[in-house]
Amino acid sequence: MLAPQGDRNRLRIEVLVRFDNRAPLRSIATANRQSEILMIIDCHGHYTTEPKDLSRFRKEQTAAANAKDKTAMPSRASLKMSDDEIRESIEKNQLKLQRERGTNLTIFSPRASGMGHHIGDESVSLEWSQICNDLIARVVSLYPQNFVGVCQLPQSPGVPPKNATGELERCVKELGFIGCNLNPDPSGGYFNSPPLTDKWWYPFYEKMVELDVPAMIHVSGCCNPAMHTTGSYYLNADTMAFMQLILSDLFKDFPTLKLIIPHGGGAVPFHWGRFRGLALNNGRPELTEIIKNNIFFDTCVYHQPGINLLAEVVPADNILFASEMVGAVKGIDPKTGFNFDDTKRYVDAAPKLSAADRQKIFEGNAHRVFGRLKTPAPAKAPG
Amino acid sequence: MLAPQGDRNRLRIEVLVRFDNRAPLRSIATANRQSEILMIIDCHGHYTTEPKDLSRFRKEQTAAANAKDKTAMPSRASLKMSDDEIRESIEKNQLKLQRERGTNLTIFSPRASGMGHHIGDESVSLEWSQICNDLIARVVSLYPQNFVGVCQLPQSPGVPPKNATGELERCVKELGFIGCNLNPDPSGGYFNSPPLTDKWWYPFYEKMVELDVPAMIHVSGCCNPAMHTTGSYYLNADTMAFMQLILSDLFKDFPTLKLIIPHGGGAVPFHWGRFRGLALNNGRPELTEIIKNNIFFDTCVYHQPGINLLAEVVPADNILFASEMVGAVKGIDPKTGFNFDDTKRYVDAAPKLSAADRQKIFEGNAHRVFGRLKTPAPAKAPG
Repeated sequence: MLAPQGDRNRLRIEVLVRFDNRAPLRSIATANRQSEILMIIDCHGHYTTEPKDLSRFRKEQTAAANAKDKTAMPSRASLKMSDDEIRESIEKNQLKLQRERGTNLTIFSPRASGMGHHIGDESVSLEWSQICNDLIARVVSLYPQNFVGVCQLPQSPGVPPKNATGELERCVKELGFIGCNLNPDPSGGYFNSPPLTDKWWYPFYEKMVELDVPAMIHVSGCCNPAMHTTGSYYLNADTMAFMQLILSDLFKDFPTLKLIIPHGGGAVPFHWGRFRGLALNNGRPELTEIIKNNIFFDTCVYHQPGINLLAEVVPADNILFASEMVGAVKGIDPKTGFNFDDTKRYVDAAPKLSAADRQKIFEGNAHRVFGRLKTPAPAKAPG
Repeated sequence: MLAPQGDRNRLRIEVLVRFDNRAPLRSIATANRQSEILMIIDCHGHYTTEPKDLSRFRKEQTAAANAKDKTAMPSRASLKMSDDEIRESIEKNQLKLQRERGTNLTIFSPRASGMGHHIGDESVSLEWSQICNDLIARVVSLYPQNFVGVCQLPQSPGVPPKNATGELERCVKELGFIGCNLNPDPSGGYFNSPPLTDKWWYPFYEKMVELDVPAMIHVSGCCNPAMHTTGSYYLNADTMAFMQLILSDLFKDFPTLKLIIPHGGGAVPFHWGRFRGLALNNGRPELTEIIKNNIFFDTCVYHQPGINLLAEVVPADNILFASEMVGAVKGIDPKTGFNFDDTKRYVDAAPKLSAADRQKIFEGNAHRVFGRLKTPAPAKAPG
């Protein structure tokens, strides 16, 4: 986009800055040199290229659950997923993309749309969660420099979130995971759970605080025909969650609780004025004050103007780099020639961000949010 | 924000334009002179300052409906709403703001959050809709230069949309209305209706096409405790609707059907890359092609960066000026000193818009979308 600047162009930039009242705009070449020395952490990756037999197991499990036929449940021992198969699935996909895009570490969790909390009962959800989480642990143990684990939870419609604390604790203490994906709508599209600010969720938050792990608020596959899983359902859950949080006293009750709203915060940055106005009209402080130490947005926004807006309205302290690569929007944008989900390029090019902002977004904030994250030595050539 | 530009500042602007590769930026003073000659049409206004007795009636009607006690239903004849009361409610609010902000005509419908399609049965919804629509007709008859009517529909959960065609036809043919607000979720927050692309809705679209009226896709008050009516529910319905539409062949079946997605299109412009990618991955054309003659976004986005993004990614041909004033976000933004919902200021200042773009957004597109709109002579001093 912007070529390295000569003196004449540099003058132009300064004029632009003065007129437009922006933060000083550095040349992109300089920004890239600086970002090369960072550990770039992608806080939002799912294992979407799982070994085939996992899908066979899930199909059989779902069929048995739907038929309420416990005798038809597949056995966990039947699962055939070799290390070689895992290696191939990762090296051809997520690792390849880390290398190509120049990122170092992905905070990795099971496929979000596959959590399927609405399928079967609590026991089905628990077995499925354990299998998926154990699989993430195997990926992490094969590539400890490139992946760190975040768990899926054994939620189930109508079941108290407290019941998911056991699996959270197992994943953190036994598998070394550093966070979890918390589903605000285990019904899969009907939004009939109590708001995230309801006491219903408090026992789960207590465990999160005790273990010092954050949650990404992330729904799963949508079974409501009115909503498209990755097109509207994900974004709607994000927007819903944010609105619940800003009118509540949740962070008075849990001052160290940290929640990540993925997909750039859903509709929130685009409607920052609406949310600011609603907060102020309800006697709440400015949004920047409300979110300060507790709410973070990721950068899963798949075009340059969207990331520019995010960087303009949300403080850099509250943005975490993420791509959700090999996820919702695969393929190359014919207008740019690059993958839609190559969000590092957009963050690199966002004119409002300083070098210090980028350091926070790519690395610093991840350490603030994920208290258990111990960054391994950066891998020059991932894999 | 930007003072009228002297020569020195004008030079600065030109430098900015060259560097930033934007469309030529005219001085704001020039833009305002040009916009003075326009008829500025606000396509999204609700009568949120209704005479008090309407609220009394609705409370009694709701109580009777909830109690399933037809004998307790208030009589329509009991409603006391004088012309003087209507005049006062309008002149102190919507007309005052039209004058202050320099807009001319508001496309006006009953309070959206008050439609309450989930309350009572179809007969309750019909009576309530007729009362609210008749009230809008009275406003329009008192101020024909400043308001034109759009109707609420007598929808009800599970009831075929076909049943709402009678009231649509009455409003268009007898009251002179030019459009309707179509609720994609009469349940009030559980999204359990068929998608807008389902044949369920087709008889209603047939009537719209026959009458040459567009629909704004607009939900009503939310009775789901997980969602905030104006904070998340409205935006989520907008995002849901857009995603339904772009993967469908609805506009092949109804090439002249026109749908307005309010609130700037919910999350859509912020996630334009996501929606583009999902459309392309599903074998659909570019979004600009899909929306071209059929889908329009309004400008109810309450901060400058949001309107800038909307103007950057959505073609000017598909944007309709709107404010939803005296609506979701009342009050003054302490950072600007102006009302949050004074969206004309944001459109005036959006750097990507040319004078021709603004003419389309403020006036031209409204005539394309509202086939029955006959613009009265612009009122120099509204009221």
